[in-house]
Amino acid sequence: MLVVKIGGSQGVGLDAVCQDIVELVKQGKSVVVVHGGSAETNEISEKLGFPPRFVTNQSGFTSRYTDRNTLEIFAMVTNGRINTMIVERLQRAGVNAIGLSGLDARVMVAKRKDAIRIVENGRQRMLRDDFTGKIETVNSDFLTMLVNSGLTPVISPLAMSHEGVALNVDADRAAAMVAGAVQAEELIILTNVPGLMREFPDESTVIPHIPKSGIEAALTLAEGRMKKKVLGASEALKLGVSRIIFADGRIETPLMKALAGAGTVIS
Amino acid sequence: MLVVKIGGSQGVGLDAVCQDIVELVKQGKSVVVVHGGSAETNEISEKLGFPPRFVTNQSGFTSRYTDRNTLEIFAMVTNGRINTMIVERLQRAGVNAIGLSGLDARVMVAKRKDAIRIVENGRQRMLRDDFTGKIETVNSDFLTMLVNSGLTPVISPLAMSHEGVALNVDADRAAAMVAGAVQAEELIILTNVPGLMREFPDESTVIPHIPKSGIEAALTLAEGRMKKKVLGASEALKLGVSRIIFADGRIETPLMKALAGAGTVIS
Repeated sequence: MLVVKIGGSQGVGLDAVCQDIVELVKQGKSVVVVHGGSAETNEISEKLGFPPRFVTNQSGFTSRYTDRNTLEIFAMVTNGRINTMIVERLQRAGVNAIGLSGLDARVMVAKRKDAIRIVENGRQRMLRDDFTGKIETVNSDFLTMLVNSGLTPVISPLAMSHEGVALNVDADRAAAMVAGAVQAEELIILTNVPGLMREFPDESTVIPHIPKSGIEAALTLAEGRMKKKVLGASEALKLGVSRIIFADGRIETPLMKALAGAGTVIS
Repeated sequence: MLVVKIGGSQGVGLDAVCQDIVELVKQGKSVVVVHGGSAETNEISEKLGFPPRFVTNQSGFTSRYTDRNTLEIFAMVTNGRINTMIVERLQRAGVNAIGLSGLDARVMVAKRKDAIRIVENGRQRMLRDDFTGKIETVNSDFLTMLVNSGLTPVISPLAMSHEGVALNVDADRAAAMVAGAVQAEELIILTNVPGLMREFPDESTVIPHIPKSGIEAALTLAEGRMKKKVLGASEALKLGVSRIIFADGRIETPLMKALAGAGTVIS
């Protein structure tokens, strides 16, 4: 079992990724896909007159400020556009894909963040009414049933809160939780960089291997969006995933190359 | 088994419809939901700078002209916004809903219309590159498996073509095909009028009952959007659905009233 996280950043080549998924499924591998959607959500939000807003918390993690309107746009773009287009590509190539958000069959249930302490212009303040959450449970029985029926789940980063509202969740950490829940051996996190760099953004400093014991050190090394990916990787490790690979999603045959050892392998 | 078609027209009250679905599921009924999305697709298309375009064919049926760009907006709005928000409402009320488009697990496979003969300014011409289709098969095994697992499928009006592209399909006829495939006893088509009117738009002329033998006459009577609903009803009858109800989706407890005999009952 392999979980693939397809980044929502510009540059990740959906066609090449989907071709590799098709090939892996034909080889008999079970694949679960989790995707993001940040770049396209930003684009459509702008066009609809609601430019995106990002906030940074005390620990330096950046996330999308998600009021109800933003949540509905996020749902529309990730679950309606990106998800549907991935499913279309896979179905066209003969892979029996099924698009899901975390709301469907309560695939992902999350705890809503009541308030987020953010840092703005050097000052701290509390942000409320944010529709974001941290995943607590994954409906692994349902996902396993789908996979056992020959289906390839494609999951968008929305979860159900305990109170019954849709939440925006981080797709990297969602992929980690899903990988743990379905007991995947491997989690490949595709992004628009070739791996974790010792000196960002110098691509010649990509770290080829990080041992499990080195994950905490990697967390302090990572910058920007990479911080959440390393956090996701550490969560996946704790959940029993043997190997996490940060790989370049902009190249040809990105999954095959990742499985052959390209990128940053954490094991 | 009951199939409910929720109209995409302005005025249909999602909250009231979902409340009734929750109640019916609690009473032990199996429900499959099919929804449209025309009104919201028009709104978002306008905002994104692509005003919708409608075409009328020789027989007087009107449909959305769907080039690839329109298809992607249609997918985004119906499958990402409307579908997700219906699933959210049902999950909040304890109904284990699952959102699907016809692409997922090939729930609906359609034949793409190669070319549509349309009438424009009184003259006929052929329209090509249209991403619309007519449903040919419904994956009833998969839908039945979901229902038997206690899930309530919520289906958006997209289908997979035989060539592997996503198609916009008519939601009324999709609901009819789904109702036939899952061997539903009843199909309720909710809309923003109280039923089929003898003299449209005079609501006092709603026809309470149409016998199966009268469906062809009803087809000539119907105008505008109602034509496709009557066509859907006639298709559902042919597929063995016992009772089709055109009911008002703008009122409180719309499904309960429909099941109690309000609207136009075809049986």
